[in-house]
Amino acid sequence: MARTIDLNCDMGEGYGRWTLGADEAIMPFITSANIACGYHGGDPHVMRKTVALALRHKVAIGAHPGLPDLMGFGRRAMDVTSLEIKDYISYQTGALREFVRVAGSDLQHVKPHGILYTMAERDEALAQAIGEAAMESGRGLILMTLASGKYDATCRKMGCRVASEGFADRAYNVDGTLVSRRLPGALITDPVGAAQQAVKMATTGKVLTLDGVEIDISVQTICCHGDTPGAEKIVRAVREALEKAGVAVKSLRDWLPAQ
Amino acid sequence: MARTIDLNCDMGEGYGRWTLGADEAIMPFITSANIACGYHGGDPHVMRKTVALALRHKVAIGAHPGLPDLMGFGRRAMDVTSLEIKDYISYQTGALREFVRVAGSDLQHVKPHGILYTMAERDEALAQAIGEAAMESGRGLILMTLASGKYDATCRKMGCRVASEGFADRAYNVDGTLVSRRLPGALITDPVGAAQQAVKMATTGKVLTLDGVEIDISVQTICCHGDTPGAEKIVRAVREALEKAGVAVKSLRDWLPAQ
Amino acid sequence: MARTIDLNCDMGEGYGRWTLGADEAIMPFITSANIACGYHGGDPHVMRKTVALALRHKVAIGAHPGLPDLMGFGRRAMDVTSLEIKDYISYQTGALREFVRVAGSDLQHVKPHGILYTMAERDEALAQAIGEAAMESGRGLILMTLASGKYDATCRKMGCRVASEGFADRAYNVDGTLVSRRLPGALITDPVGAAQQAVKMATTGKVLTLDGVEIDISVQTICCHGDTPGAEKIVRAVREALEKAGVAVKSLRDWLPAQ
Amino acid sequence: MARTIDLNCDMGEGYGRWTLGADEAIMPFITSANIACGYHGGDPHVMRKTVALALRHKVAIGAHPGLPDLMGFGRRAMDVTSLEIKDYISYQTGALREFVRVAGSDLQHVKPHGILYTMAERDEALAQAIGEAAMESGRGLILMTLASGKYDATCRKMGCRVASEGFADRAYNVDGTLVSRRLPGALITDPVGAAQQAVKMATTGKVLTLDGVEIDISVQTICCHGDTPGAEKIVRAVREALEKAGVAVKSLRDWLPAQ
Repeated sequence: MARTIDLNCDMGEGYGRWTLGADEAIMPFITSANIACGYHGGDPHVMRKTVALALRHKVAIGAHPGLPDLMGFGRRAMDVTSLEIKDYISYQTGALREFVRVAGSDLQHVKPHGILYTMAERDEALAQAIGEAAMESGRGLILMTLASGKYDATCRKMGCRVASEGFADRAYNVDGTLVSRRLPGALITDPVGAAQQAVKMATTGKVLTLDGVEIDISVQTICCHGDTPGAEKIVRAVREALEKAGVAVKSLRDWLPAQ
Repeated sequence: MARTIDLNCDMGEGYGRWTLGADEAIMPFITSANIACGYHGGDPHVMRKTVALALRHKVAIGAHPGLPDLMGFGRRAMDVTSLEIKDYISYQTGALREFVRVAGSDLQHVKPHGILYTMAERDEALAQAIGEAAMESGRGLILMTLASGKYDATCRKMGCRVASEGFADRAYNVDGTLVSRRLPGALITDPVGAAQQAVKMATTGKVLTLDGVEIDISVQTICCHGDTPGAEKIVRAVREALEKAGVAVKSLRDWLPAQ
Repeated sequence: MARTIDLNCDMGEGYGRWTLGADEAIMPFITSANIACGYHGGDPHVMRKTVALALRHKVAIGAHPGLPDLMGFGRRAMDVTSLEIKDYISYQTGALREFVRVAGSDLQHVKPHGILYTMAERDEALAQAIGEAAMESGRGLILMTLASGKYDATCRKMGCRVASEGFADRAYNVDGTLVSRRLPGALITDPVGAAQQAVKMATTGKVLTLDGVEIDISVQTICCHGDTPGAEKIVRAVREALEKAGVAVKSLRDWLPAQ
Repeated sequence: MARTIDLNCDMGEGYGRWTLGADEAIMPFITSANIACGYHGGDPHVMRKTVALALRHKVAIGAHPGLPDLMGFGRRAMDVTSLEIKDYISYQTGALREFVRVAGSDLQHVKPHGILYTMAERDEALAQAIGEAAMESGRGLILMTLASGKYDATCRKMGCRVASEGFADRAYNVDGTLVSRRLPGALITDPVGAAQQAVKMATTGKVLTLDGVEIDISVQTICCHGDTPGAEKIVRAVREALEKAGVAVKSLRDWLPAQ
């Protein structure tokens, strides 16, 4: 199984006067940062600062585009067309890319934010639109998708450079989907538990579902959520446990094959 | 005097359900399009469509970033810092650039929109910030500035690749500034008058002020405003008059020296 | 059948620099104006001016609240909760009401805008939330609903003061729903056709569907859309035809029974 | 000197996913809450919840309208016209008022937010516009102004029902203006110091400036800022010190004379 893995986290989700997440504390432990691009969170100043923070820690940078719903933090499904989604992704990806370029680097990946990520799972046309947007923004650009999901399969079939994602801090259903946040046990808030799940995924390609069933899961990147209290402890525990288990924790750009 | 000139116009200033300007009618006659980037007007869909329209007519594309004031169309001065302005320009320039790149081309220039253009004239630190934003976004990127103005001088001194701009459809004061829109005679709405002013600027390096004084003006690009009724007639008349006068009307990228 | 009817139209849907619709031309012919409240269109200046225009023509004023989606003009379904909808309606209703009060009058009605109107038809909890929002904003406040629809039935059952709405310029399906805008024949753009449909609805309580079937429809208010080219001709034709047919065209507040 | 005083604080300045301030902890100690109305902070859900919180503690409610600059938290001066300001205030006041009315109460006051408050000090036309907006929204509506300032004088002259405001946690200049936040000593973060300043203002009508000069100041309401860390301790200390000094701390509506 995977002896090399990427560790990603959502970053830069403050906006104007408002802050969110413990970016400073988390950045040292991850290898890929998904930076908000202004639609669900993040503003140009936050973006510039978060890009600088990531580069300081040699963390690879990805665009984290969301729906145009600041009030709902990009977490409410909207009935948008495939073309609208493509345009929103291009806009936000470009905006973030400029800050990264000005700082002397370039984008590694794109990861749709919030409900957009879920919508891609439910709607193949949307998954395809996201895949197209990523490919049009650059052949080498990596797209993060839900491991074992339909959106993942669709984008791989299209020839996208995909990194399948597993979650250290979320419980799984037997069909490989995530347990809804509304259900008890959906969130793994214990650093030890999250670290164990991450190590299991990375070293055995398996994950234990909430029902206690072991299912296959093939991941190239593991996500920890950054906006929960104590997130920095979870991220740190995951990172340390992975390394202790002999897994190389490295940015995707350094090892993920080109498509 | 100038025997080659660029002809620019603001484009893509619709937003969502709302349209503005006669982009389809004007595009065939200009050589550079300043495309709105979402802050004062323009949305991702309008941006994609306007980029396609420009490319169809082989018109060079520039970012037209504005203040974050959709309700005020970027026409109200805001007390923003130099760093905020830089960030707003980077954000918007990058967003537009992505659409241009996806369509197989790249940006030619940047032109600040509305009051931002005026603020740069009044505040040297701001002018400098705009110059820096443009230079950081790419050495070859051209910045449009008001001919004979302080913002123009500041950016030239910094080593920016500057194209000084004259206006075909606006009256001038004796100090080279534009007559305020609030004063009578500020707008030249007669196509013949606008064409004459453009030809005079391009061929003699002079312009007749509202007071009837002839002053020097050195321009590499001439602007016609696109959001006035009948704008397409003015643009067409200007283009035809310039060519009739033996002036080559060409995109800046084809002839403006690199800095 | 109805010998008195209200004639309503969406008004004040411009925003900032952008205009929409022929408010000045249409206002003299209607009896109720649904004024946009800033979320899908309309801004505080447009709202003040539109309120003044309505009062000048003695037209009754209603709030026309929409989803918080300016870029999509409130026409894209969003997965909002009932409580969110209530809050959006309260916010927008209050904002408009202030302008009406300052001008010496008060609100007559509320009519959800765009997809919100359609969402209420599909989702009973949402219909109920809208009904509650209207009732909490004032017992006498009238709520406009789709005649023969589920949203209408839900709100009537709740004790809302409801005005069932018919459309002069839209074709009907046999189940009383509107023919989708994407289908041919959905829009009635001929003033004579729209006027005939309005008169038939008002005087006989029937409407001829696109399939040529006559169905029952009980309406207290008839809507003409204001944002189609030539809308003012349709509205005028509808008004004149109604009066010629002996129907009294009057604002709801003057005759609709209190609940 | 004043033996009765009002104690106010800005509340409800979160937005969507973002929180700000310790509303729950502060509300029990104040008598007037200035609730954000969506332009600089606050959204419809936050507004509804904050109104409910205030009413639970029998705290009088005021609208806290700001400039339409969410990204800048309403703290950046904008070149808006008097009419624009009036419209922004009407819009936001109405929006908040609806939530208050639905909850069975009504607005006590209006207090301009952030730079708008400062702009009123510098520009008489703007001060007048704010006064007009408040008076048009209701004769009894109280307007909070900077004690000893020009905006205060202008609005009193107009016949507005004015409550002059002093700040417990801000240092004063000898001319009665506040020391700029950028200067050292501008903020009084020590609860004891803030409490002393409040008591001195309320009982003697004097305040000690940063330069150690005692100046006259006549205040009917005292403000503590809610978005500084430890704000709840300051507010509590101020409240307790005032009561210990024999000052009755009561909502303005209960004792401020009608104009």
